[in-house]
Amino acid sequence: MNRCFEDFPVGMRLRSASYQVAPRAIEEFAREYDPQTFHLDQVAAERTLFGGLAASGWHTAAISMRLFIDTMQVTGGIIGLGVDELRWPTAVRPGDDLQVDTEILAARLSGSRPGQGILRIQNVTRNQRDQIVQSFTATAMLPTRG
Amino acid sequence: MNRCFEDFPVGMRLRSASYQVAPRAIEEFAREYDPQTFHLDQVAAERTLFGGLAASGWHTAAISMRLFIDTMQVTGGIIGLGVDELRWPTAVRPGDDLQVDTEILAARLSGSRPGQGILRIQNVTRNQRDQIVQSFTATAMLPTRG
Repeated sequence: MNRCFEDFPVGMRLRSASYQVAPRAIEEFAREYDPQTFHLDQVAAERTLFGGLAASGWHTAAISMRLFIDTMQVTGGIIGLGVDELRWPTAVRPGDDLQVDTEILAARLSGSRPGQGILRIQNVTRNQRDQIVQSFTATAMLPTRG
Repeated sequence: MNRCFEDFPVGMRLRSASYQVAPRAIEEFAREYDPQTFHLDQVAAERTLFGGLAASGWHTAAISMRLFIDTMQVTGGIIGLGVDELRWPTAVRPGDDLQVDTEILAARLSGSRPGQGILRIQNVTRNQRDQIVQSFTATAMLPTRG
């Protein structure tokens, strides 16, 4: 649990642990941050485009962040600078098991912050049926070994 | 509280209510979804690049979603299809008051789903010092009047 910029060469792939999405967690997250019928009410959700209760996309993003952080194991911390092409092609359902695949697309030292490196990564979150529930590319900063 | 696709013409601008970010909320969100020092520990955070406790970017995104949903007032629900150019140029600090400005960039009827419209929007979240803490563009689907 002490990894740095140098431990993530271009082309490296990492797979996270899995995270089970509790039905109550979907509703709790939605009540605070995305209070819409299809995230809150099982019965009413059946009459929406989702055809049943689905997690907020931002909840899926938060869970994916947790899996990513636990996988990267960067003691000094990894700071997201930006995210592109964030998509949610399949809804996350109560009880789903999610897992994140990370690939290092590019790596360079920071020009403006000595002692920091910048990674370009792709994160893909899948459910237990191997369906993609979220994907994005991101730029993130983390300490170098020095 | 019953707005539809037709109520959001291109060029429309909306401003949300404001949301105060409680210090405890920053730590609670981070403990579950982004357990890194600069989101969890006031004292340790002072020795990081943030120079003090800062909210997770995904927490800022979740709060911004809440403000956006409350502003749009779409009874039938608004479903995010994708987000681009998500950036966090300034950190969110304990006690900050956040507000979201929304602009409708484009609007069209869904080709594949009758009764649904698709909006392209820009959301910019600012703090009480008028600093941008988050920005993105997004595509979202919502019911038409019919």
